[in-house]
Amino acid sequence: MTTFTKTPRNKVKRGAKRATYDVETVHAILDAGFICHIGFVVNGQPFVIPTAYGRVEDRLFIHGSPASRMLKTLEQGIDICVTVTLLDGLVLARSAFHHSVNYRSVVLFGPAHKVDDVEEKTQALKAFTDQVIPNRWLSLRPMTDKEVKGTTVLSLPITEASAKVRTGPPVDDEADYALPIWAGVLPLRMVADDPISDPKLPDGVTVPDHVWHSGYRH
Amino acid sequence: MTTFTKTPRNKVKRGAKRATYDVETVHAILDAGFICHIGFVVNGQPFVIPTAYGRVEDRLFIHGSPASRMLKTLEQGIDICVTVTLLDGLVLARSAFHHSVNYRSVVLFGPAHKVDDVEEKTQALKAFTDQVIPNRWLSLRPMTDKEVKGTTVLSLPITEASAKVRTGPPVDDEADYALPIWAGVLPLRMVADDPISDPKLPDGVTVPDHVWHSGYRH
Repeated sequence: MTTFTKTPRNKVKRGAKRATYDVETVHAILDAGFICHIGFVVNGQPFVIPTAYGRVEDRLFIHGSPASRMLKTLEQGIDICVTVTLLDGLVLARSAFHHSVNYRSVVLFGPAHKVDDVEEKTQALKAFTDQVIPNRWLSLRPMTDKEVKGTTVLSLPITEASAKVRTGPPVDDEADYALPIWAGVLPLRMVADDPISDPKLPDGVTVPDHVWHSGYRH
Repeated sequence: MTTFTKTPRNKVKRGAKRATYDVETVHAILDAGFICHIGFVVNGQPFVIPTAYGRVEDRLFIHGSPASRMLKTLEQGIDICVTVTLLDGLVLARSAFHHSVNYRSVVLFGPAHKVDDVEEKTQALKAFTDQVIPNRWLSLRPMTDKEVKGTTVLSLPITEASAKVRTGPPVDDEADYALPIWAGVLPLRMVADDPISDPKLPDGVTVPDHVWHSGYRH
């Protein structure tokens, strides 16, 4: 088992029993999501902005408009924190005090840097698209040079990371187990409803397999 | 329509067309979620931590163990950023460049302060529990004084806020609409699977209505 080194930043402070530094676990959680929350500081004020990401091996890519304040700030190489949270269920205990949530989360640290190489940039843009919905990239009108140039891509090495995972039933006070109060887990997951075709589609263009079978169960 | 005042912090920098400062919209988005991402700074380093929240009128409550580093840091009254993001669908365009996401998000700023008043604290703890799953609180073993004392509750006034909302189909380059590429929206939502009863339940305790009808459609 390969693990990330604990540093003062990525060492989990609370709930250490739920923490893991296992590289495979961190990668699996990142691959199961596609929205992260990025924390950065401007003049001492923290901002937390949601954005899409793509993972390629040990790098996390984010992207956006060159006019984005967040990307212009991040590309200066400042310290950031990137958090991915996946909600798996409500943990309903016999007392409010022991209510909890089943989840998987990853916290990453480090400065990101700007990707200038066109090939790496294109690989990153493919990674975003296919992270959201596998096999989409190949079905699309290819990106133009102007589009690639008009997109800022940042790369964050996945080297200073930790994960937290909670699973299983509630843990109640011993005396409370005898109470006639229902307790358990209400599992939650993200599902897709039927795709809504763009009203401007030409006649005869039907929903492709990669959208029907997107990995989000209906 | 009551709106939040724009400040240098809460003024939306990018995608201003998607931005709103409408109080009702901000409250509705907060009420539709229960997990936020809190950004705070320790020695210049930002941290982004997911946690549950509850809204009561114009206050957002968060809570946790008195030993939590995050809460101990926040209760000093430092500037924080709290972000709530709800994912509504994948926006699948004809080009990778115009791919997007339908979502509702809220960003809040301000220092939080510690709630010491026992009544306000109890109201906050009820708000958390019922924000996750309505009507749960009344079914539970009441909180003990020791539990209330052993929980730190922080209150953040919802006064410096903004929301962003994207809805609707993709917006493609004019020339791309003629392409035989499927485009549209794949709606996403959180659903509950059947509740999993705690194996330690006494005989005869069945799943209550508030869990079956939790607001998460099956």
